[in-house]
Amino acid sequence: MGRVVVEVMPKPEILDPQGKAVVGALPRLGFTQFTGVRQGKRFELEVDGEVTPEILEQARKAAEEVLSNPIIEDIVAVTDASADAGTAPVAQRAGLA
Amino acid sequence: MGRVVVEVMPKPEILDPQGKAVVGALPRLGFTQFTGVRQGKRFELEVDGEVTPEILEQARKAAEEVLSNPIIEDIVAVTDASADAGTAPVAQRAGLA
Repeated sequence: MGRVVVEVMPKPEILDPQGKAVVGALPRLGFTQFTGVRQGKRFELEVDGEVTPEILEQARKAAEEVLSNPIIEDIVAVTDASADAGTAPVAQRAGLA
Repeated sequence: MGRVVVEVMPKPEILDPQGKAVVGALPRLGFTQFTGVRQGKRFELEVDGEVTPEILEQARKAAEEVLSNPIIEDIVAVTDASADAGTAPVAQRAGLA
């Protein structure tokens, strides 16, 4: 089973209220090192077979047309994450299942 | 300027309505290759200096305590992304600014 990961972030000039809320909360909770936080989205797209260059191209197109709003967001990365995935779901990979 | 990226995904056993909506929309829009979609979050934490092992450890702690809900979410990755970042904002890195 293949997996493509798509990462989307708000454009730098766009206000990011969720990130602002987090950066305001961190120092109150003892995390004083972080000067800025931006919050974006991470999608995992599963495919039945291998992630071919065609699939990756389709994922890139889906990222532009469906998974992001190009007015306010940037696509940061579209990557074949099948190697990370193996056949195990995310939680098992992270040893947390 | 350093940057730490934190990636958070809903646990596999947790219903993910946003992912479900996307996987339902994709075939209608011509993307028939994708059998499953999960939607999670991606945070960029900025620090003034370099990303030291201590900073990375603090980011890991912040990921557990502030950026994710351990009941329903897994932390997939906490990585030093300073090398990707340089001094340029995300959009410039992606060549989209």
